Amino acid sequence: MIIQNRRSFIEKSAKGVVATGLITVASCSGSEKDALGSSFVHHVFFWLKEPVTTETRDRFEKALKTLVTVETIVDYHLGVPAPTDRGVIDTTYSYSLLTTFRNKADQDIYQTHPTHLKFIEDCEELWERVVVYDTISI
Amino acid sequence: MIIQNRRSFIEKSAKGVVATGLITVASCSGSEKDALGSSFVHHVFFWLKEPVTTETRDRFEKALKTLVTVETIVDYHLGVPAPTDRGVIDTTYSYSLLTTFRNKADQDIYQTHPTHLKFIEDCEELWERVVVYDTISI
Repeated sequence: MIIQNRRSFIEKSAKGVVATGLITVASCSGSEKDALGSSFVHHVFFWLKEPVTTETRDRFEKALKTLVTVETIVDYHLGVPAPTDRGVIDTTYSYSLLTTFRNKADQDIYQTHPTHLKFIEDCEELWERVVVYDTISI
Repeated sequence: MIIQNRRSFIEKSAKGVVATGLITVASCSGSEKDALGSSFVHHVFFWLKEPVTTETRDRFEKALKTLVTVETIVDYHLGVPAPTDRGVIDTTYSYSLLTTFRNKADQDIYQTHPTHLKFIEDCEELWERVVVYDTISI
């Protein structure tokens, strides 16, 4: 079940909604435009300053986990480079922060949210480079 | 309802699952590790060759929509640069393809899937640069 494509899951669960009256389940699909359920994807890559110590990692990961409590975030993923290796893959970053939003307005709220501003204030000394890709649904 | 954080939605809907016996709904949460429900995120950015015509866009978008039918994909997002503008944001790419997988093994299946290979064969002449970020949950 867990490996099936979410679209087919939604189709199946939508039938369940009708059958059970559990209307809130329908919001699992989120958007009609794509399977992720969010139109705005904000993907950030951090290159931390060397040396990247265990203490640095602990501090940064704790800060990331607080950051993603911002209410307008629909989904998030906190990551490190996967063990893949092809020429087109950039594995040089330290951490990946993926957050999704219903729309640009919700992402704008996140940008000026006190939790986000505190994250920057607390952690900006840790990174040497940040690259952001903001993308909206086609 | 739709703007609430998915984690709280899952908590609430989990209660609904118990009440109704709709066990499949539980897979909406996917993973205990993060809110996205997938441990492996594969994010690809394409820079198409100039000039990027309407015909090129139509062809590429159609190919992307076929590509994301690969069964091991949990969620996906097909995007273009959002109208955001800060120094750290890269807005130079043409298209963004985000796909999530349960794990690296499922992503490996995708890499050699006939649908993926046909996408590359059909479209590689369209792009001049591709950058991939593969990231796994911390």
